Amino acid sequence: MSKIISRETVFAGRVLDVGVEKHRLPNGKRSSFEIIRHPGGAAILPVLSDRRLLLIRQFRPAVGKMVYEIPAGRLEPGESAQECAGRELVEETGYSAAQILPLGCLWSSVGFCDELIHLFLGHDLSAVGQHLDPDEVIDLCPMTFDEALDKVRKDEILDCKTQLALLRYQIHGEENNQ
Amino acid sequence: MSKIISRETVFAGRVLDVGVEKHRLPNGKRSSFEIIRHPGGAAILPVLSDRRLLLIRQFRPAVGKMVYEIPAGRLEPGESAQECAGRELVEETGYSAAQILPLGCLWSSVGFCDELIHLFLGHDLSAVGQHLDPDEVIDLCPMTFDEALDKVRKDEILDCKTQLALLRYQIHGEENNQ
Repeated sequence: MSKIISRETVFAGRVLDVGVEKHRLPNGKRSSFEIIRHPGGAAILPVLSDRRLLLIRQFRPAVGKMVYEIPAGRLEPGESAQECAGRELVEETGYSAAQILPLGCLWSSVGFCDELIHLFLGHDLSAVGQHLDPDEVIDLCPMTFDEALDKVRKDEILDCKTQLALLRYQIHGEENNQ
Repeated sequence: MSKIISRETVFAGRVLDVGVEKHRLPNGKRSSFEIIRHPGGAAILPVLSDRRLLLIRQFRPAVGKMVYEIPAGRLEPGESAQECAGRELVEETGYSAAQILPLGCLWSSVGFCDELIHLFLGHDLSAVGQHLDPDEVIDLCPMTFDEALDKVRKDEILDCKTQLALLRYQIHGEENNQ
């Protein structure tokens, strides 16, 4: 069995909580690791009534570019993953989804971070108005599934949760059509 | 156009390089962001001669569990992504791949980190001996593609790069069989 022996917080920021943790490993050895603790997040692939997918392009300082993504964000205290997905959908796109279905989960960077992202599909969308934070720059990019898959193939959609939501949506659709 | 105005390193560890960066956004506003700078990495889905996939289970302190993954690691200075994939495959599984084919790229956590992971397929494997680091705990888990996909569906394979490599391998196979 493994166990955390100690944790020293080395940076507690607005978003990132970075610590150096000493762990006892399953092989009995002890070792230190740099680990980011994260509350978890949710991401949602919104499906428009004409079956196009409502992707967004969002400025991401980490890569200095506008990045194709699906709406997503971190869980707020007391919020369920599904509530988080619905809230982020409204804030980032201005659409509300009457139906939100689970599409699996992912660990984004399990080597150094415990972030678990819950994926959802959003159906029955209605326009309610976008609510961006002052430092958010987001464009709406509706596209067909084939257009999105083409952008995955060409490495134009690189964001992992977005690629995975698209491919899981494909599997989901195939299973429902069997 | 966006621009980094300044960066203050707040933690420089063995693995993580965390900074607070001031950026000029595409909308002209200025804002600060907590960002991890990463050299990038490579991950490889190894395909055995009987077509089973050579997944691994690796202890990950961030989630305190043995985690299903594909062999992966960070780029060393001067190393290509393909060389990194081949090296990590040998170190973590003890198998060498005579053929290493690209399978796309992903950003793991574009909200706070610039890590780009290059995915590969490894074919024509031969046993050469495992070389684990002292704090690595890794089991080999060969399984069929259907077994792996079943574990994705049941959220038993949560690691994002691993899920994505499996789904891209499926698409890759379908395209090659058309």
